[in-house]
Amino acid sequence: MFWVLFLIFLAACFAAGTTGAIFPPGPWYRDLDKPSWTPPDWAFPVTWTTLYLCMAVAGARLALSEDNQIAMALWALQIALNALWTPVFFGLKRIRSGMLVLSLLWLSVAACTVVFWGVDRLAGFLFLPYLVWVSIAGALNAAVWRLNPEVARNPPEQAR
Amino acid sequence: MFWVLFLIFLAACFAAGTTGAIFPPGPWYRDLDKPSWTPPDWAFPVTWTTLYLCMAVAGARLALSEDNQIAMALWALQIALNALWTPVFFGLKRIRSGMLVLSLLWLSVAACTVVFWGVDRLAGFLFLPYLVWVSIAGALNAAVWRLNPEVARNPPEQAR
Repeated sequence: MFWVLFLIFLAACFAAGTTGAIFPPGPWYRDLDKPSWTPPDWAFPVTWTTLYLCMAVAGARLALSEDNQIAMALWALQIALNALWTPVFFGLKRIRSGMLVLSLLWLSVAACTVVFWGVDRLAGFLFLPYLVWVSIAGALNAAVWRLNPEVARNPPEQAR
Repeated sequence: MFWVLFLIFLAACFAAGTTGAIFPPGPWYRDLDKPSWTPPDWAFPVTWTTLYLCMAVAGARLALSEDNQIAMALWALQIALNALWTPVFFGLKRIRSGMLVLSLLWLSVAACTVVFWGVDRLAGFLFLPYLVWVSIAGALNAAVWRLNPEVARNPPEQAR
């Protein structure tokens, strides 16, 4: 049962992660002013793959735990917000809307970490790296906003 | 407890639905040849809002049910795939990749309907309109592919 659950949760992660693959950082992102501590491009897929594996293990463990109602709802919420950020930031190239989505994602992951900790220690622990990474991504989104105020104010027109 | 769960699941639906709001059907979609039975543009947000309410009720009921492990994992999977389709079809304007995502979404919603039915009759019932609508969307995606083979083969370049 654990492995069936793990694979379904991993498929959900894969669906969310696909948005990252279909809207990769391109010239627009490269040309933005970025802080000196910006992680290199290769770090993003490596980190996300690791985090997705952690999330899927946590999801499967939580599903098999008692009193997991809120935990299960929060797991679904964070994966939907996770799928949303890349299309907003890299798809629409909207730095400010990206910041809003990332803030909501951060809140949902923080809520996950706290609630999961109470249901299953390991599941909560497995969400800690995710919380750290979303904090870094949020700081990066904020720094990009600060360093590129004109681009943030006037996002490029999208072809409709 | 039901209402807290309902609101968290609804927030997940709202996050997925946001992709539809940020990649609305534009001139590209209007200029495609479409079958005579294509629903009018206004029908999409109305239908999705209704379906999202049904999904959130189903999610909350399932979370409070016994033996809901697979059901909870499948609920998370369908919402991630739901969030993915619009960025692929309307964002990237990729008709064939959209068909792939929609096929996976259809499979996940069909699995949800069957599994939910065994856990909580009403939850399964609430996913039936969703399954019907995704079937219509799938038929529409397929018809658009058939009627616009050149556009499907050569999707417009995306600004990076």
